[in-house]
Amino acid sequence: MQPVTASRSLSRARVVAVTGADAAERDEALAGEEPLEIRACGPGQDPVGIAVTMRTPGDEGSLATGFLVSEGLVAPSELAAVRFEVGDPAAMAQPENEITVRLAQRFDASRVASRNFVATASCGICGKASVDDIVQRCETLPDGPVIARATLLGLPAAMRQAQEVFASTGGLHASALFTSEGQLRALREDVGRHNALDKLIGAMALSGELPLHGSLLLVSGRVSFEIVQKAAMAGVPILAAVSAPTDLAVATAERLGMTMIGFLRGERFNIYTGRERIDLTG
Amino acid sequence: MQPVTASRSLSRARVVAVTGADAAERDEALAGEEPLEIRACGPGQDPVGIAVTMRTPGDEGSLATGFLVSEGLVAPSELAAVRFEVGDPAAMAQPENEITVRLAQRFDASRVASRNFVATASCGICGKASVDDIVQRCETLPDGPVIARATLLGLPAAMRQAQEVFASTGGLHASALFTSEGQLRALREDVGRHNALDKLIGAMALSGELPLHGSLLLVSGRVSFEIVQKAAMAGVPILAAVSAPTDLAVATAERLGMTMIGFLRGERFNIYTGRERIDLTG
Repeated sequence: MQPVTASRSLSRARVVAVTGADAAERDEALAGEEPLEIRACGPGQDPVGIAVTMRTPGDEGSLATGFLVSEGLVAPSELAAVRFEVGDPAAMAQPENEITVRLAQRFDASRVASRNFVATASCGICGKASVDDIVQRCETLPDGPVIARATLLGLPAAMRQAQEVFASTGGLHASALFTSEGQLRALREDVGRHNALDKLIGAMALSGELPLHGSLLLVSGRVSFEIVQKAAMAGVPILAAVSAPTDLAVATAERLGMTMIGFLRGERFNIYTGRERIDLTG
Repeated sequence: MQPVTASRSLSRARVVAVTGADAAERDEALAGEEPLEIRACGPGQDPVGIAVTMRTPGDEGSLATGFLVSEGLVAPSELAAVRFEVGDPAAMAQPENEITVRLAQRFDASRVASRNFVATASCGICGKASVDDIVQRCETLPDGPVIARATLLGLPAAMRQAQEVFASTGGLHASALFTSEGQLRALREDVGRHNALDKLIGAMALSGELPLHGSLLLVSGRVSFEIVQKAAMAGVPILAAVSAPTDLAVATAERLGMTMIGFLRGERFNIYTGRERIDLTG
């Protein structure tokens, strides 16, 4: 095992690879994992510590921006002239593990205090209250777009092709954004499902492309409440996943008018909500 | 979709199931997801809020206990005469979403304040410091046990057989504890990987079976730093996973003297660390 250093998305390890009765030593790629503290402030403000997340190093600006936007702490319109400050070299052994988002206007730290960022990035104690909260904070999703059945079935293969890192480690989650014609718009990966989505949303926010009203979001893992919350904050009308959604995820999508697709693999998928955006004849 | 209520591990939803050109409506099971606030206190103390986690309802006492033990906030020896208090019906719409662990002795809340329970249950800013911290807090793992190659290869099938809920939703992570002879000791499931492990560790802690020095732990997903941390706090010497470990997970296992197995599926697995506990001739 090579020494752990910050800012690497891949490491290599010497492993014993066993297949049946055979065993051979070989080098294997490992997905990088490091903690990142996300902080935010406006002009003249001290940085406010908001979250610590275990993430794959790389694309920290997108991750921090996406977290702030998808958790409703910063509006996309507040990202004009945003700057990033990586670490505090005087105080930190690994300065890359701290990032400060410096906004052009005052950061309202009370938004952090009123949310329960304790142990998870969940919204609060009562799931139902959180759903109401999200519905209130999100703009209404558009009626469209509509995606054809055959286009939808081709998306997992398109995402896998784009996942070069995934191919070498098998250890990274992916979030991919597609047009309704099935064209890949962007893809991000991370050891954490939430981080992959935050990186994607952050990259789109920084290039001024929010809300994502014309796009479909495909995620590699399961769909929990928090994935739906983040997608809704970014204005995504169609959310598809290779694995299963939870019941709270489905209930939240239904309340938001979001289309939810699960178990998208091979020739199959399930439509949980919003079937009007899927063209089954296509 | 049936109304979301607390304390259910499964819901049912009406879905459109698409296979190729066919589409049919049917009922599908969904894994339950609800937030849980974990609090702790000793005699005469006010409960201290420690974490909010999104979890599958059920087995809250084990989940809360496992979280406290695996995060190093309560020692197994402090669990004598532990009591649980579910919710605060006067204040809460869904009282089942809050649990207080009442210990027989004073709860040292400063342990919570000194840990960074912000957005994730990670240990802190610097991964390396966290690894050092865990090594210091964990007792040394035993030299054994040794598990035979053929026994190891059979464990994923044994875990799947025991996962009745998994079979019906495809949406739950599992953590299973086996003897070195391959006998299943205990299994817990949850929408969250960490929660499945916390429920398992908590159940074993409450029955006085920690440290788990004679056991192998198998987890259904990937292995991150936090999974290794929790396993180490419970004294597990062999950790196996169906998917990949991260580099920080492997580095931490190496420092702890823990055996780490990844990609355990079909006739294959990789040994990342601690190969002396695997009998490749068996």
